[in-house]
Amino acid sequence: MSDSRVKVGIVGLGTVGSGTFNVLTRNAGEIARRAGVAIEVVHVGARRDNPRCDTSKVKVSRDLMAVVDDPEVDIVVELIGGTTLARELVLRAIANGKHVITANKALIALHGNEIFAAATEKDVDVDFEAAVAGGVPIIKSIREGLSANNINWLAGIINGTSNFILTEMREKGRSFADVLAEAQQLGYAEADPTFDIEGIDAAHKLTILASVAFGIPLQFDKVYTEGISQLTADDVAYAEALGYRIKLLGIARRVPAGIELRVHPTLIPEERLIANVNGVMNAVMVHGDAVGSTLYYGRGAGSEPTASAVVADIIDTARNIVLDAANRIPHLAFQADQLSDVPVLPIDGVETAYYLRLMATDKAGVLAEVTRILSEAGISIEAILQKPVGDRDRVPVIILTRPVLEKKMNAALARMRALPEIDDEIMRIRLESLDH
Amino acid sequence: MSDSRVKVGIVGLGTVGSGTFNVLTRNAGEIARRAGVAIEVVHVGARRDNPRCDTSKVKVSRDLMAVVDDPEVDIVVELIGGTTLARELVLRAIANGKHVITANKALIALHGNEIFAAATEKDVDVDFEAAVAGGVPIIKSIREGLSANNINWLAGIINGTSNFILTEMREKGRSFADVLAEAQQLGYAEADPTFDIEGIDAAHKLTILASVAFGIPLQFDKVYTEGISQLTADDVAYAEALGYRIKLLGIARRVPAGIELRVHPTLIPEERLIANVNGVMNAVMVHGDAVGSTLYYGRGAGSEPTASAVVADIIDTARNIVLDAANRIPHLAFQADQLSDVPVLPIDGVETAYYLRLMATDKAGVLAEVTRILSEAGISIEAILQKPVGDRDRVPVIILTRPVLEKKMNAALARMRALPEIDDEIMRIRLESLDH
Repeated sequence: MSDSRVKVGIVGLGTVGSGTFNVLTRNAGEIARRAGVAIEVVHVGARRDNPRCDTSKVKVSRDLMAVVDDPEVDIVVELIGGTTLARELVLRAIANGKHVITANKALIALHGNEIFAAATEKDVDVDFEAAVAGGVPIIKSIREGLSANNINWLAGIINGTSNFILTEMREKGRSFADVLAEAQQLGYAEADPTFDIEGIDAAHKLTILASVAFGIPLQFDKVYTEGISQLTADDVAYAEALGYRIKLLGIARRVPAGIELRVHPTLIPEERLIANVNGVMNAVMVHGDAVGSTLYYGRGAGSEPTASAVVADIIDTARNIVLDAANRIPHLAFQADQLSDVPVLPIDGVETAYYLRLMATDKAGVLAEVTRILSEAGISIEAILQKPVGDRDRVPVIILTRPVLEKKMNAALARMRALPEIDDEIMRIRLESLDH
Repeated sequence: MSDSRVKVGIVGLGTVGSGTFNVLTRNAGEIARRAGVAIEVVHVGARRDNPRCDTSKVKVSRDLMAVVDDPEVDIVVELIGGTTLARELVLRAIANGKHVITANKALIALHGNEIFAAATEKDVDVDFEAAVAGGVPIIKSIREGLSANNINWLAGIINGTSNFILTEMREKGRSFADVLAEAQQLGYAEADPTFDIEGIDAAHKLTILASVAFGIPLQFDKVYTEGISQLTADDVAYAEALGYRIKLLGIARRVPAGIELRVHPTLIPEERLIANVNGVMNAVMVHGDAVGSTLYYGRGAGSEPTASAVVADIIDTARNIVLDAANRIPHLAFQADQLSDVPVLPIDGVETAYYLRLMATDKAGVLAEVTRILSEAGISIEAILQKPVGDRDRVPVIILTRPVLEKKMNAALARMRALPEIDDEIMRIRLESLDH
């Protein structure tokens, strides 16, 4: 360091960028009392001003690369989003010998392996706490707080928009489309909500969580991803009648054959704490061999909650700068040369329990047929709920199964669909007990 | 370091000591993959062997000080409990230039200021993650994960025994004495349960949490402490009828006049996540100005859950040894010369809402008298529940108030007790909404 301050350059002054600027400025005194060194924003790169920030006392550049190339800057904070320019900018910052902090989950999930290799080469820190679950220190908790454990599995509500929609569907019996429209009006959902409701955003985050939990390279393309757009208010209500809540979970589990990586709507017993995480809130359960189940909860998005995580990374990096201790914690929790090549399992090879909803002719023989097919496939039934629905032609039959290999379930489903008394569209939702 | 391993000495081989030994041994490979250095137990000090540990490959001493004085040992792990010998042993380890890790909440709460001063002097690490909430990385989350925030308040279920008792009382309508006896049989409660049920253990932990949250010296003697032994199953049921759960909370809050530090039974709205933390589980809510409310949940006791935190501290310290970066994080989160002398408020000066249960003659005028007293004291009423109880002489009247200074409430209670229609014993339980 040329002087005793740690100097920060922020690139991007949108929701998270402005929050980061404001938290660093407002809490400068408290932060210096903790860090033992003053941390100052010296350069901001932004295409336009943000009225929520008073940047009159710092250098502001319209050319974002000017921050990355500024010799004054110790830490570059990338908050522009996207993966093309962001990647270029982060790699150039690293090449310039600067430490990097980002809140960009897509960037880390898709280009993290390349970025971390470059950072290890140049011996700089790249931190990304804000990329998963906003202000919740979940990366730190897994990488450091649970470092004594063999992590067995984790399961997270890591997309606030989907959780808001599912909460509204359950509490008010509303349809998916209806709640989505409201979420868009409230600003909880984007005009194009695909990333949120189809599980892609959650898959980015799950990719990162799995890597720091198991010490495997980032493998976004291996995540099985299924969103919530097919869920009906009826399924949410039937699940509740059986003592379950439906949540969009990102699940990573280590089993003897490999690692499961999957995002999908999931029934969870209502007595689990995570089943009671509602609205836009996020929570991640992490199960380690020594600690058992733990849970981390908070706001997964928003200006200052996300900034809380970005600034914590800045403080951590500032401590490392002062002590000349970059890369104290490996990017993916395990030493770069100690990553594991355990394979990610295809969804066919995943074992889980199921909720099935069949629409069937209201005849006595149908249930016998269905249970025979399940029995012949070696699938045990946990519960059956048959809803008498007025004088309709087709009645719903809900079945909860014990855990079974997905491949076997698919074969059984094909046989059920072939029954003339059953509609082709069978609703199938996975179920996780999350108890050990 | 004399060689590339980090060498650990464990003092005490009871529940936590044996767990620590076993986790370090069983997960040695995984831990080295994370830490980048082998971490080995080289010396154990124990008065007797523990059949749950195979210590045949390490040096074992009956003289505990032999570990502290062993020149081979880099890190001394104090797991004997108590505060006399433990203090002596920890101070001697520090004097010997060794890093220290402890799970001993009483030791830190009572002698932490002295211990940390000695450690700062000798530039060694003293870590104590396991002292609060067992395997939950709550110290790390506050000290590092939320370091960007001005912490406004925290509230924790940090005594598993009390939470088990309160959960059983609520779920099964059982009496305090009845559940306590069972908890003692199950081994969840000590033969002398005073520390757990009277809030002293929670007060030790709250002392530590408040210091790392607000940067104040450890001040156990300033904590207001009230246990759960006076609670009745009726109060638990009335609270539930009003939409609340009763939990033993440790609460630390920063208000303009100073800092509140208090442990007492507390009504919490049932929709709060922390209200749903049951059995022996622990959870801590932390509210920061940037992040809002966060929550951390897991097992607060037990051999391997506690060992998980001890070993995480060992790994952190090993990283610091490798990088020659001791005291990277200040013991109490803030630099030792930057601690604050903000005063801890007496309980009289605390503002909170209340649940009151009066036993009154079943006459129309009583309620009018009581509400007049509250109104004259400037205390607003949130809800009233009058339970018609068969043909008994005295009926319970339950009142929930809005927040008011404790001093004012005490004055109002004195006036109520003076009413001839009201029994002298008025049950008064504090109520916290925990919403902002």
